[in-house]
Amino acid sequence: MLTNDQLSRWDQDHFFHPSTALGAHARGEAPGMIIKTAEGCHITDRNGNRMLDAFAGLYCVNIGYGRQEVAEAIAAQARELAYYHSYVGNGTEASITLAKMVTDRAPDGMNRVYFGQGGSDANETNIKLVWYYNNILGRPEKKKIISRWRGYHGSGLMSGSLTGLSLFHKKFDLPLDKVLHSTAPYFFQRENVAQTEQEFTAQCAADLEEMIAREGADTIAAFIAEPVIGTGGIVPPPEGYWEAIGAILKKHDILLIADEVITGFGRLGTMFGSPFYGMDPDIITIAKGLTSAYAPLSGSVVHDRVFEVLARGTDENGPLGHGWTYSAHPIGAAAGVANLKLLDSLGLVDNAADVGPYLTAQMRAALGEHPHLGEIRGVGMLTALELVAKPGTREGFDPAAKVVPQIAAAMARRGVIARAMPQADIVGFSPPLCLTRAEADTIVGVTAEAVAEVLG
Amino acid sequence: MLTNDQLSRWDQDHFFHPSTALGAHARGEAPGMIIKTAEGCHITDRNGNRMLDAFAGLYCVNIGYGRQEVAEAIAAQARELAYYHSYVGNGTEASITLAKMVTDRAPDGMNRVYFGQGGSDANETNIKLVWYYNNILGRPEKKKIISRWRGYHGSGLMSGSLTGLSLFHKKFDLPLDKVLHSTAPYFFQRENVAQTEQEFTAQCAADLEEMIAREGADTIAAFIAEPVIGTGGIVPPPEGYWEAIGAILKKHDILLIADEVITGFGRLGTMFGSPFYGMDPDIITIAKGLTSAYAPLSGSVVHDRVFEVLARGTDENGPLGHGWTYSAHPIGAAAGVANLKLLDSLGLVDNAADVGPYLTAQMRAALGEHPHLGEIRGVGMLTALELVAKPGTREGFDPAAKVVPQIAAAMARRGVIARAMPQADIVGFSPPLCLTRAEADTIVGVTAEAVAEVLG
Ligand SMILES: Cc1ncc(COP(=O)(O)O)c(C=O)c1O
Ligand SMILES: Cc1ncc(COP(=O)(O)O)c(C=O)c1O
Repeated sequence: MLTNDQLSRWDQDHFFHPSTALGAHARGEAPGMIIKTAEGCHITDRNGNRMLDAFAGLYCVNIGYGRQEVAEAIAAQARELAYYHSYVGNGTEASITLAKMVTDRAPDGMNRVYFGQGGSDANETNIKLVWYYNNILGRPEKKKIISRWRGYHGSGLMSGSLTGLSLFHKKFDLPLDKVLHSTAPYFFQRENVAQTEQEFTAQCAADLEEMIAREGADTIAAFIAEPVIGTGGIVPPPEGYWEAIGAILKKHDILLIADEVITGFGRLGTMFGSPFYGMDPDIITIAKGLTSAYAPLSGSVVHDRVFEVLARGTDENGPLGHGWTYSAHPIGAAAGVANLKLLDSLGLVDNAADVGPYLTAQMRAALGEHPHLGEIRGVGMLTALELVAKPGTREGFDPAAKVVPQIAAAMARRGVIARAMPQADIVGFSPPLCLTRAEADTIVGVTAEAVAEVLG
Repeated sequence: MLTNDQLSRWDQDHFFHPSTALGAHARGEAPGMIIKTAEGCHITDRNGNRMLDAFAGLYCVNIGYGRQEVAEAIAAQARELAYYHSYVGNGTEASITLAKMVTDRAPDGMNRVYFGQGGSDANETNIKLVWYYNNILGRPEKKKIISRWRGYHGSGLMSGSLTGLSLFHKKFDLPLDKVLHSTAPYFFQRENVAQTEQEFTAQCAADLEEMIAREGADTIAAFIAEPVIGTGGIVPPPEGYWEAIGAILKKHDILLIADEVITGFGRLGTMFGSPFYGMDPDIITIAKGLTSAYAPLSGSVVHDRVFEVLARGTDENGPLGHGWTYSAHPIGAAAGVANLKLLDSLGLVDNAADVGPYLTAQMRAALGEHPHLGEIRGVGMLTALELVAKPGTREGFDPAAKVVPQIAAAMARRGVIARAMPQADIVGFSPPLCLTRAEADTIVGVTAEAVAEVLG
């Protein structure tokens, strides 16, 4: 067996990690964990450290780790047929079955699934489909995409452009043109602190109306948004937000892409997030919970009203010039089928609806009165703790002080993984949907200790 | 068990296939195959039809189908740890080991691997890295990317822009700006038929020099190219091409991205295609053969001279704002490790060097004198048959007549899968690297019969 030292050497010398300080990692100043195995909500590294993963990987291991039913489905598929492509109408039992299972669970009218590998490529597909759609409808000028500040939609050139966090733009010459960012529906950080939640919602709607008027509705193809902001800070929308936004989009014939990479498959305590908020999307982006990350798989779920136009387009123009070699990969499809079955049979969506709010409530009970506490918020199995530098204000900490990363590190020393959210003073929680109340209590206890250690 | 009828129904109603005529498929006019199992070079559908897959899926199943060693590696990884992320320096034994194995096999100085899921996203990563690199070097204007007509680099917005086939641009508003296409190094279809191969190479070089002069070398960041054109028609470069192009790129300080998604891991009868042609790339794109498609995994192999700049960039600017949730996915990494071991232990790279040229030679012997034969060409385990409408000319068939698709269909009826290449009159072959001479003979025999059936 390879020693840890040997692996660490290779890791520093050869492994170019995502979202990492490359220089520091290569010099051995910022070693990561080498994870060996995992079960339920716990991961274990090669040194035998066992930790409660309160972020489910990257919001993705919905069913929890180590589910042997999914492992066996993957194994069986690998033995029988690891790969065949799905171009020109080809498929496998697993990929066809999963298309059926996804559309059965998706909102009414969302009857077609294009499968990709990750959330970013699914959003790429979505933009291509939206442009194609408007070309077929004879609206070649209707192509701009409105996203939102603090949205996260991936880190490709287009998906990273849709993302509304400067960390993903800086030094990469993003966003590309054709992408506009509208107001972040982030009540706590609203510009005008005097506004009520309803007033702030009206402000978000008015800002969007104004952007559309300025650009011209006939130049805007789609609005893309997460039902709940994820990486941008775990921010549920203000009251009435989706009702107001949805009406504006309908009025101007602008498609709605609901990016449910995080919210899809149970995280809000409902199968999808769109119906939870009364959204009526034309396309839904799915990934993460689709397979609980057991294998890479994403999807674009397309409404009949869009698919009909696309189908007409290929009748007129020949096969769609779009495909990934690994679209609908059999291993991912087999994992997805087994995963969705488990999600149902274990009642995990209901568990998220129960234990998620419990976690948020307990967090509020433990930390709600802490002087540096700005806001505790959450929905379903998503919880965020927003801290402030000066009690009673919304002022952030000096980024150089790395306050939230210190809290996350203090939690990790106590065996709980939470996430220091980027570009904010937020500790984020997005545990597996199988979290128990006892595990929620552990998370809360450790968070309170770590906050006390760092902030008193 | 699900019936074929039931699956076909779901397939038509719910599965949005890549590169497919959506309307025809949804109406049941263009059913694909539902593949059940596969072994070696053969796939079997749910009706029991067994076919020799002379295209290895989509040039990707290098080791052949059904290798239980890879299936078991996937199964073991799925049971122990199906997922953990590789952000902020985290990894697994499999992902670190694979980074080491890839860099051991890559050309000298190519010491870092960023892992993605598919070839398209790897090329996205490459463009982001190149832009970042020039920003760190203080050359914000040096950003354009030169690709080539008939190149294929994926079908995302950027990777599809790099692709030089109109099928992937049409109705999608591609290419994006910043992407330029230079002359396809396609000797048979050269504009000036009077040119010798050497003269044509000089022409390609002169065209590139002229493009660089016109745009300004200080605006051009990189040149991206497949060592051998793949989807654009399976076209090895004309004599002296890479020497001439390489010198121009060096002179103007333009990075070279070698897209080895097809040529990497043995297809040319060498581990990589770059050394085969004396290329000196700064970044190599890998996918397909990296796992032989047993699980989605791609990579960007980065030369030290580029990595050093990127590392300096993150020292100055903080962690790289780039990552996919499924970067270095454990299942893909485990598949990659097992796959590369088999590639070696079965001697498949050598087999490609032996049986590939045999296939091309036998094809030439069988069809070289056919009146509609334009050219038979190949390198390693890649062979192409280019047909012409009028004997003695280079004139193509009326696309509406679908001559090459008819030949492919006639071959399929005889149990051999070849590919009617897009936008050309070309039958393409890219079999698994484990192809035997007997299987090569079968392919040749069936091709000759099918050509005779369709063209006499
Ligand atoms: C809402 C959302 N969309 C898209 C993505 C991108 O997915 P991936 O990392 O798989 O490319 C993410 C990833 O976190 C996400 O949270
Ligand atoms: C040379 C080359 N680059 C990139 C790609 C894109 O890879 P993927 O289909 O995995 O996105 C392909 C796919 O055929 C390819 O042949």
